[in-house]
Amino acid sequence: MVIPAETICAPATTLGGAIAVIRISGTLSFDICEKIFHTSDKNIKLADIKGFTVILGDIHSDNEIIDEVLLTVFKAPHSYTGENSVEISCHASPYILGRILELLINNGAVAAKPGEFTQRAFLNGKIDLSQAEAVADLIASRNRASHKIALNQMRGGFSKEIIELRKELLNFASLIELELDFGEEDVEFADRNELKIIIKKVKELADKLINSFNLGNVLKNGIPVVIVGKPNSGKSTLLNVLLNEERAIVSEIPGTTRDAIEDTIVIDSVEYRFIDTAGLRETSDIVEVIGIKKTHEKIDQAAVILLIDEITDSAESINKRTQLIREMIKGSEKCLIILINKTDAAPDNRKSDLAARINLKEKESLLFISARDGSGLEELRLKLGEVVLKDKLSSEEIIITNLRHYEALLKVSQSLGRVMTGLQNQIPDDFIAIDIRQAIHFLGEITGEITTDEILGNIFKNFCIGK
Amino acid sequence: MVIPAETICAPATTLGGAIAVIRISGTLSFDICEKIFHTSDKNIKLADIKGFTVILGDIHSDNEIIDEVLLTVFKAPHSYTGENSVEISCHASPYILGRILELLINNGAVAAKPGEFTQRAFLNGKIDLSQAEAVADLIASRNRASHKIALNQMRGGFSKEIIELRKELLNFASLIELELDFGEEDVEFADRNELKIIIKKVKELADKLINSFNLGNVLKNGIPVVIVGKPNSGKSTLLNVLLNEERAIVSEIPGTTRDAIEDTIVIDSVEYRFIDTAGLRETSDIVEVIGIKKTHEKIDQAAVILLIDEITDSAESINKRTQLIREMIKGSEKCLIILINKTDAAPDNRKSDLAARINLKEKESLLFISARDGSGLEELRLKLGEVVLKDKLSSEEIIITNLRHYEALLKVSQSLGRVMTGLQNQIPDDFIAIDIRQAIHFLGEITGEITTDEILGNIFKNFCIGK
Repeated sequence: MVIPAETICAPATTLGGAIAVIRISGTLSFDICEKIFHTSDKNIKLADIKGFTVILGDIHSDNEIIDEVLLTVFKAPHSYTGENSVEISCHASPYILGRILELLINNGAVAAKPGEFTQRAFLNGKIDLSQAEAVADLIASRNRASHKIALNQMRGGFSKEIIELRKELLNFASLIELELDFGEEDVEFADRNELKIIIKKVKELADKLINSFNLGNVLKNGIPVVIVGKPNSGKSTLLNVLLNEERAIVSEIPGTTRDAIEDTIVIDSVEYRFIDTAGLRETSDIVEVIGIKKTHEKIDQAAVILLIDEITDSAESINKRTQLIREMIKGSEKCLIILINKTDAAPDNRKSDLAARINLKEKESLLFISARDGSGLEELRLKLGEVVLKDKLSSEEIIITNLRHYEALLKVSQSLGRVMTGLQNQIPDDFIAIDIRQAIHFLGEITGEITTDEILGNIFKNFCIGK
Repeated sequence: MVIPAETICAPATTLGGAIAVIRISGTLSFDICEKIFHTSDKNIKLADIKGFTVILGDIHSDNEIIDEVLLTVFKAPHSYTGENSVEISCHASPYILGRILELLINNGAVAAKPGEFTQRAFLNGKIDLSQAEAVADLIASRNRASHKIALNQMRGGFSKEIIELRKELLNFASLIELELDFGEEDVEFADRNELKIIIKKVKELADKLINSFNLGNVLKNGIPVVIVGKPNSGKSTLLNVLLNEERAIVSEIPGTTRDAIEDTIVIDSVEYRFIDTAGLRETSDIVEVIGIKKTHEKIDQAAVILLIDEITDSAESINKRTQLIREMIKGSEKCLIILINKTDAAPDNRKSDLAARINLKEKESLLFISARDGSGLEELRLKLGEVVLKDKLSSEEIIITNLRHYEALLKVSQSLGRVMTGLQNQIPDDFIAIDIRQAIHFLGEITGEITTDEILGNIFKNFCIGK
């Protein structure tokens, strides 16, 4: 894709705050801005100003002043896009924002398409494609895990390693193709042992990244949690208590009254997403028959199952329900937490009586709570925090979350698998060369060394305007 | 009010765009930011950097990197607040924004209250109080008129003149009070003729500004337009057509898909606000009996009346309805436009037939339209554009829109009126001195030379966070 010649402009912030920022990038950035920007020093030329400098002045249209603004100058290649760029910081009025954009366009800029600034950063070689994709992920990140994964990837992540390995593969591919050119002569430029080593190395990396994909998505989108239990056991009360506390915590951070994300809570920066809560949102339980099939479906989607029983239930019935769910999740890594609810409505000794008769194997999973008076909820939160993926998050391992990367890596792994079998079975070199070429191709698609307008279009259309 | 010692921080943009900006202001701005910001040059000290300079670097919490950001340094007194200030431009992720604010606060900043940055600008003498108030108006401005009024005021507007005149008044007040000190001796330090001139000058300015208040509010909030007419004459269709076209136009400006402001259209940068449209919003007219009283009430609130008749109506009934409304608006500056609707449903000659029999005096007000096929709507738009306040807007006259200023100016005018009568009727000097003091007091309240915590509290509580 050719780098477009137009100078683009777009708002980089939404309205609603105190200030708005407009971005301009392209060859004509300085010329266009000079036509609409006045500063006290009339002779100032934006092209003569050092990059990373801010100037105070007015945006005007003929003799009408539109706003007092701060204008920041970035000079190619030291800008986000790699081009000459300007950022205008104005008052966040819809009228002012509209007028300034109109002026920029009337003076020769064009409205930027979604993600076009980042696309230019890619086309100008400032970042590779997987880094560009990470920018959108970073902006969308709303918990520690998704933030960390995106930031790692934006700062290079796995792409440096992929680029290196791809280069080595390319080398071997050329050597093998050279051998093929010599046709009947029995020459071997590419050391087969070295080739095996590098193929193995690339395939291992690909497989490791492929395996991280599920974990990555769980971390990115929140760990799925399901609440199951008899009607009136207190499922909805528990859900509401957990969600409402969360909202109270979130709103304490100044200025971040985020749009409450439906039915998620964050514990120690990890997000837990309650699934299939439609029937639970009312404050009082609707009488509900949980058929085995429905429970099965819910549990299938979850990584954590909260089973709610009541303190007045018999140990036998609790053990029976627990047993049922244990069978459903056998062989999986799902985590079951058994909650004995409504402790506020029973005498103290009932807890120890019941605990003594619960299946010994489940002792670790057992918690007594009262969703109504809040007792035991802190312990529940701690238990959720200990759950499953916690240690994996803190490791420095690289995790992929992008479906496009996942699919490309699958193809890399398959191709290299064929190469390995081929080398073992002494398959003719031209077949091996084809598979190596294919692996090289898909590795290149991840980092953007190989790309098409279609791939780029698909990636950047999901960006926001101004990024 | 004492300038607070704390260093404050707040987001200056809302989430939803590509970037978010966080503002920090106060003595410790640089110290706090240095604790959480790393740049490639480890030895860099923010205090050593020139103001108006941008630096690229990372925000980090211990060893965890939170984001790559641009940090802009402003040094006292050359900043918005007049204090050492920093702006952090980060990726607009709710997680990142929350973490950076948390870090700033953990390192000694406090969350800014609404308008606190502007309040500090006022307390540090960067702007006067009426200018501070204009900042909020500027951000809220959504049409050319409200924008112009706010920008004028923010750039000094009437406050310079008020400060000058107040000084002169103060002078005279002191002289008169000096005379009073001399008691029985018949001295006259304050030239009574000069005093009369200055009093007249201040009162005239106050009265002019008072008179601009109604106009100012109409321009700021939109010119009120009412649509009246018989049931089924097409009122709702017309309203919907006008509003929908407007929405289509607005959405053409890139990135400015503003929240559609209920029932307003902008023609040539002037805003028209349709009032009392609750019953008109349905696409088909609800059968509605417009009693004289209800119509009266609607027309009372409006500056422009759109009377809708139908092409099939008799000239007599149209003339009668027109006459009725003319009587209602007699003596006011209200503008009546008579729309003969549904031209698409009548033969062409019906127009000229009808036009010939409409009251001659109304020829100028008459328009044939079809809300259904859109004919005549461009002419309606032109006619609305010519309406009433257009020329007043383009003049350079200073207009006030702020109720607080209006009330203070009323008191100034009243006090000075008493002074004038007093001077004519040779009222004792001490009474005159009291009234002059009162005028001085209220003039000072406008610009903030005299202020109380209560006044400041009321003004800034309506600002947004981060401004």
